[in-house]
Amino acid sequence: MLRPPGSASAAPITTPPGTGPPRAHHSVRHTAAAAPRTTTTADATATPETLVTSTTDRTHRPTALPPLDLDRLPALTAALAARAPAHDRDASFPAEGVALVHEAGLLTATVATRHGGPGAGLADTARILRALGAGDPAVALVAAMTLFVHAAEARTPGWPATVYGDLLAESAAGPALVNALRVEPELGSPIRGGLPATTARRDGGHWLLTGRKMYSTGAIGLSRMLVFARTEPGDGEPVRVGSFIVRTDSPGLTVEPTWDHVGLRASRSDDVVLDSVPVPADDVIGLTEPGDTPGARPDPVTGAWNALGLTALYLGVAGAARDWLTGFLHERVPTALGAPLATLPRFQSAVGEIETALIGADTLVDALAARVDAGDPEAVEQAGVAKVLGTRAAITAVDQALTLTGNHGLTHANPLQRHYRDVLCSRVHTPQDDSVLTATGRAALARRCTSAASNPPASKGN
Amino acid sequence: MLRPPGSASAAPITTPPGTGPPRAHHSVRHTAAAAPRTTTTADATATPETLVTSTTDRTHRPTALPPLDLDRLPALTAALAARAPAHDRDASFPAEGVALVHEAGLLTATVATRHGGPGAGLADTARILRALGAGDPAVALVAAMTLFVHAAEARTPGWPATVYGDLLAESAAGPALVNALRVEPELGSPIRGGLPATTARRDGGHWLLTGRKMYSTGAIGLSRMLVFARTEPGDGEPVRVGSFIVRTDSPGLTVEPTWDHVGLRASRSDDVVLDSVPVPADDVIGLTEPGDTPGARPDPVTGAWNALGLTALYLGVAGAARDWLTGFLHERVPTALGAPLATLPRFQSAVGEIETALIGADTLVDALAARVDAGDPEAVEQAGVAKVLGTRAAITAVDQALTLTGNHGLTHANPLQRHYRDVLCSRVHTPQDDSVLTATGRAALARRCTSAASNPPASKGN
Amino acid sequence: MLRPPGSASAAPITTPPGTGPPRAHHSVRHTAAAAPRTTTTADATATPETLVTSTTDRTHRPTALPPLDLDRLPALTAALAARAPAHDRDASFPAEGVALVHEAGLLTATVATRHGGPGAGLADTARILRALGAGDPAVALVAAMTLFVHAAEARTPGWPATVYGDLLAESAAGPALVNALRVEPELGSPIRGGLPATTARRDGGHWLLTGRKMYSTGAIGLSRMLVFARTEPGDGEPVRVGSFIVRTDSPGLTVEPTWDHVGLRASRSDDVVLDSVPVPADDVIGLTEPGDTPGARPDPVTGAWNALGLTALYLGVAGAARDWLTGFLHERVPTALGAPLATLPRFQSAVGEIETALIGADTLVDALAARVDAGDPEAVEQAGVAKVLGTRAAITAVDQALTLTGNHGLTHANPLQRHYRDVLCSRVHTPQDDSVLTATGRAALARRCTSAASNPPASKGN
Amino acid sequence: MLRPPGSASAAPITTPPGTGPPRAHHSVRHTAAAAPRTTTTADATATPETLVTSTTDRTHRPTALPPLDLDRLPALTAALAARAPAHDRDASFPAEGVALVHEAGLLTATVATRHGGPGAGLADTARILRALGAGDPAVALVAAMTLFVHAAEARTPGWPATVYGDLLAESAAGPALVNALRVEPELGSPIRGGLPATTARRDGGHWLLTGRKMYSTGAIGLSRMLVFARTEPGDGEPVRVGSFIVRTDSPGLTVEPTWDHVGLRASRSDDVVLDSVPVPADDVIGLTEPGDTPGARPDPVTGAWNALGLTALYLGVAGAARDWLTGFLHERVPTALGAPLATLPRFQSAVGEIETALIGADTLVDALAARVDAGDPEAVEQAGVAKVLGTRAAITAVDQALTLTGNHGLTHANPLQRHYRDVLCSRVHTPQDDSVLTATGRAALARRCTSAASNPPASKGN
Repeated sequence: MLRPPGSASAAPITTPPGTGPPRAHHSVRHTAAAAPRTTTTADATATPETLVTSTTDRTHRPTALPPLDLDRLPALTAALAARAPAHDRDASFPAEGVALVHEAGLLTATVATRHGGPGAGLADTARILRALGAGDPAVALVAAMTLFVHAAEARTPGWPATVYGDLLAESAAGPALVNALRVEPELGSPIRGGLPATTARRDGGHWLLTGRKMYSTGAIGLSRMLVFARTEPGDGEPVRVGSFIVRTDSPGLTVEPTWDHVGLRASRSDDVVLDSVPVPADDVIGLTEPGDTPGARPDPVTGAWNALGLTALYLGVAGAARDWLTGFLHERVPTALGAPLATLPRFQSAVGEIETALIGADTLVDALAARVDAGDPEAVEQAGVAKVLGTRAAITAVDQALTLTGNHGLTHANPLQRHYRDVLCSRVHTPQDDSVLTATGRAALARRCTSAASNPPASKGN
Repeated sequence: MLRPPGSASAAPITTPPGTGPPRAHHSVRHTAAAAPRTTTTADATATPETLVTSTTDRTHRPTALPPLDLDRLPALTAALAARAPAHDRDASFPAEGVALVHEAGLLTATVATRHGGPGAGLADTARILRALGAGDPAVALVAAMTLFVHAAEARTPGWPATVYGDLLAESAAGPALVNALRVEPELGSPIRGGLPATTARRDGGHWLLTGRKMYSTGAIGLSRMLVFARTEPGDGEPVRVGSFIVRTDSPGLTVEPTWDHVGLRASRSDDVVLDSVPVPADDVIGLTEPGDTPGARPDPVTGAWNALGLTALYLGVAGAARDWLTGFLHERVPTALGAPLATLPRFQSAVGEIETALIGADTLVDALAARVDAGDPEAVEQAGVAKVLGTRAAITAVDQALTLTGNHGLTHANPLQRHYRDVLCSRVHTPQDDSVLTATGRAALARRCTSAASNPPASKGN
Repeated sequence: MLRPPGSASAAPITTPPGTGPPRAHHSVRHTAAAAPRTTTTADATATPETLVTSTTDRTHRPTALPPLDLDRLPALTAALAARAPAHDRDASFPAEGVALVHEAGLLTATVATRHGGPGAGLADTARILRALGAGDPAVALVAAMTLFVHAAEARTPGWPATVYGDLLAESAAGPALVNALRVEPELGSPIRGGLPATTARRDGGHWLLTGRKMYSTGAIGLSRMLVFARTEPGDGEPVRVGSFIVRTDSPGLTVEPTWDHVGLRASRSDDVVLDSVPVPADDVIGLTEPGDTPGARPDPVTGAWNALGLTALYLGVAGAARDWLTGFLHERVPTALGAPLATLPRFQSAVGEIETALIGADTLVDALAARVDAGDPEAVEQAGVAKVLGTRAAITAVDQALTLTGNHGLTHANPLQRHYRDVLCSRVHTPQDDSVLTATGRAALARRCTSAASNPPASKGN
Repeated sequence: MLRPPGSASAAPITTPPGTGPPRAHHSVRHTAAAAPRTTTTADATATPETLVTSTTDRTHRPTALPPLDLDRLPALTAALAARAPAHDRDASFPAEGVALVHEAGLLTATVATRHGGPGAGLADTARILRALGAGDPAVALVAAMTLFVHAAEARTPGWPATVYGDLLAESAAGPALVNALRVEPELGSPIRGGLPATTARRDGGHWLLTGRKMYSTGAIGLSRMLVFARTEPGDGEPVRVGSFIVRTDSPGLTVEPTWDHVGLRASRSDDVVLDSVPVPADDVIGLTEPGDTPGARPDPVTGAWNALGLTALYLGVAGAARDWLTGFLHERVPTALGAPLATLPRFQSAVGEIETALIGADTLVDALAARVDAGDPEAVEQAGVAKVLGTRAAITAVDQALTLTGNHGLTHANPLQRHYRDVLCSRVHTPQDDSVLTATGRAALARRCTSAASNPPASKGN
């Protein structure tokens, strides 16, 4: 979460009574519609050293993570769903929802057992994200990013031990959201190649980060940002890229409320501007020369978590749409019919199309997730396929529900149009369809190429 | 296989040298295009008793079933594929292909271990049928029917022990195909309800069956037909329905070569005409009063085997189409391009669409099949959904390959058009899409109905 | 337009300086979000007679309708487009846009030449609505309703002459919007049959109308409402239905701001509540007994105007989306590409899909509109088909543009998401797809039925 | 039609009694399946001069073309439909059908009035081809090619006058089919650019043509072939390309029965092999240097005729499929239903989808055809769009009919599967979808490009 600079350990004191920290800061920074560009209130005289050093003396926190309780998922879905319309309307960050997710142990579900966590795998994570997505996909999305970070660390340690330990301690005390910031205005997404424009300049024991990151989901509520940046090369030093672990209470960091999308409005995927933001020298993950590109392109398993987890999330949205639809069809009794619409074969068949698509997509995601957990590399490779098919199924399902319900589905008085606006956002997450299709097609063609010599296919007749 | 009546054990003698038995009888019965209606050559003076009794003295057969060898699947696919064009052209029964399947132990893969078989489950069966379908779906379809019969007997014994033992002995000696004959001209499919018009009249120690069955896959090559019929009620006896086990060398049984479809031509799904065909009194499965309808509607697990197994079969066809397409795109080098079509992004992306659809469908089928094997009732219930999605994916994939290849895909010189004609047949198998969609929609609506009272969905806003 | 009751002829005086009348009244009635149900401020002591009689002494108006100027369409599209985002955001009635449309003579384009109007046909109307829809579909929709009313009167006089003359005089002086109010909460749409719940009770020289109408497009800005209602039968009088011409400055009439849709937000298709609203005895159109149902179901030509006109309107929305897309693809130059996205074959082909769909739909609508103008009954009958195909094409085109542009299309900073929300509303207008498809299918089956006897189709072979 | 070389005027003598000339030659040349490569029976000693000169002494023919009688279209459709199954089964050339088309004046409908013909335009041609396509699309296709040749000559004279006069004289006496042969094995289609490999070598007063043409529709029945070829450059002469008018009774010309497609089987779109085939020096159309490419790329109006005419043809096929479907739904009375399938809403709606698609496509084609006839260049440009949309609609309609009818649609006992196999061929005709989409997309992007400067589209908000 964002804290006023220079007051990290004292943060709770400055929080207005009765509200959680993220919401408090959100209200501080983004109140005025007339002032769309917010700036940090950092004391300009503070040096990086004094600010950042102070973050290490956190000693009196609870040390146990909240226990994971998957049985609470249905209740949690309902609780999130109750708040979702207001957050959608205001495009306000769903801090209370995040707190509920934390309390159910879901935000730390993927922390490794060796770190005292439940060590949930991708199958469980998909189940969690589907339930959260059915309630409020904005909450689900910020939770997903945190779950993915913990899961990656569980698989392959990359964080400095003390830094990760600090994050865990904070995660025991309350919701500690983490997200990787990668997209930049000039670049498109680094996933598609290219060096980041954000720079890390060495200044004594710190890096000073400067740049702008877009689509930073949950920025206003984050505790840590993993900022993908390139170093400014010194004498003889090559350019390196890596993910710099930025505390969101650091000076020079501003969240600009640029996010104004038609869907996922409460996800607050705003711009983050960094102006010489200090990061301790060791607080970097995967710093390497760009030719190696381990930083630029996530490893396949991380990609599979991202693809399958987010697909599950949006299938949750589609499931909520289906549930609203079936309820509507039971309640709606046209005068001329004298019976609920649910009794008409036309609607039964149409609901069947929706349900069929969702069963297929859910089964596909769950099957691959279980196989990813079991270490099946083929399943890892096929996760993008599941994202393409699953998000198409989700979008189509909600669209069909819209078509069936006419004015009732289009009015803000009912949630269906919100589900549709939300589910449309599923397309933009990495990996996008065109990338998956081209890669999948090339793989199929390459497979054939190697076997073509001994088995000429075009000569078979009839 | 069909044998001349009264000569069961001596059948090979009447077979022309150099041809397998099914093919031989096929040629005997169906030679003349001018005589489309064949008749049995049964000696009209033979009584049912003498004919049927003779089938029991089979004593000198090999007693072990051929061992199951899944490693032979790729070679088997290739061997079937080599013969498929000719069988498609002639609409001739693929007897040699069936023999190859038998020799690899695949025709008896689902015989229970308690009967000395491998006891393969649905997941293995799907794998087998996908491979056979990629080679020749007509062979795969007749094999599927036999595999389903053995699998049903493995789950729930229904055959008289000696009769099934006799079938197994025959299956050890050579391919013994079995199929259930259900569809009748007057009725449509009994799956949708209704009594069969085919009757079983009691005559001493036998039933005499009379009626006509349509779409009797592999009829000319079957060893046993499970004829769904109703009894003619005697004094005080109620009407009952059940599956009568008819030996195909029985008198009064005729296969009429009515099958002339655009696809699956070699499956020879002809009409079978029964004219007082004798069946020993005990050779009946599941004889019950129709109100109970266990005979009219297969149990859900049997339905799941049918749905998932046949979907895998047609996904095999689509996989063969994809393999031909990728080979073609590597081989085809337009003058103006100077490189294979496979290098063009447009084709890579289009192949990616096809591959994506097939990966999704294959994964769905395999995941549900494994869960059916594990006894998951939800997976049993969702098998129809997989059939809808899987056959749509298969048809669409081959259609896209056709679109991409223009004249090359449409000519008989290449196999793609045959794959398309074959895969179009996937729709007609039970359960058909409209039934699945309506049932699935009703189930989704019913689920909501029970929970709607406490959770009114239409009142949620925004 | 809605005026404060009892001040009809003095309306301009009460208008705040600098705003058009509809906007003024809108702000008066709908200011408080805390008071969602507005009520009229009618002086309760006013009698119907005094109020309505006063509307006839309008003598000093300009008598000529504004000349029709189709050359101004492109400029008008641009002017409307400039205001559309704000009206969408506020869901405010686009009064200035309506005024611009009036000034260009477009609001009275279909007034018959015998009434001094241009007598534009459906082809011209489709052209007008396409251009207005590309600018602001909310403006286009309220204009469409007025154009349809004038066109119907041009074809088949139904208004009392003096009442229509009065409307024309008002239309010469300024924008005079008219719309038919038909939908009621209890009924669904009367198009599908059934009597309206809204009643007209005879009270001396007036009818007193009581009821509620939903989806009353542009209600707050209307000058006349054609309220479909049934009479309360007196002694010996049968129930009759008809369209009662209600002046919107009548007492007892309230517009409730219930409209809060995801699209067409500025169309203000609110509820209208009538509480003993007086209408002079002769100000009724088509009053007949319901068995004749000329009032319940519009004549086919009126239906064709509605179907083709509104389809053209939404094709205008889709055209605006395409234009934004092509501009975006020219402007967007990814760093890695070093050239506009417009240069990529993938985007060219995708734009080609969109353009192809729109050319096809535009051509279809225009061809049928011209044939309707020429009196071709087949074209009249096929208008619903054009609505199904045209609105599908429009929705699909904008959806494809969304898919191509990712985050850029989904942000409120760009208009594409608005176009999408607007175009989604095309489905809900009469005739809806399911009605058209069933009717079209029945017609095709009926055609066959009459010719089937002499030409048995199922017996043709091969 | 193909005649034995050197015996043009004596052709009937060599024809077996009771068969028409094309059929006769077909049987002569293509009898043996064991001899797939046929050769001409030309006397090897004949010189080009003697052979070709002999073709000019045709003096006693009727001079009037058969009158055009569009009222005979329905009867003609039925007559062609009666023969279509057999020609499909045998892949035999429909000579009798072509004769019927000739007798109704349809083969010469587009001959200019200045040449004594009816001068039918594209709208009439589309009507003719739709009717013929509904009967037998193979007949329709060969007729189309001839109609297009006459129409092109009517628009822009290109044939030497005497040569065209000779063709007309032959067309008065009997069916005289003409087709342009363009596609070659090495090249793909010249439409996409490139020089033909077929050469014309000058030898005294003749050209000698050598090469191979593929997909030569109706080759066995043609009277003239317009062979696209390049000249072999002599001393100082540049390479030129043009269409050489080859009489099919010329020596050195062989039709190889390579055509074995899944659809349009009777169109006999075989290979034509030319081995020094003599053509009089002046019998060339449009001989120019390839840089000018008037020969390589047809003029836009010719392209529009081709695109719209062939689309109409395949819409005829789809219409026949719909007619069979509606008849089937009236005839099919399931026992359980006790009423025709036509009474079920599910089928009514499904037929409505098919009918809707066909009405839309037919209207689009007819509207553009009429505008092409009126000289509208925009309509000419949009003909490719109509081909994309129209052939998609046709294919989808027949596919939906297949889906609705299950086994009944797939059996050769019913015509639906043949209609489907035929309609699948619609995709391969020029212009193909990918070309149209890319060109259409580029045009839309280019339009925007020119107007983008003054109207920046991406900056519009909301």
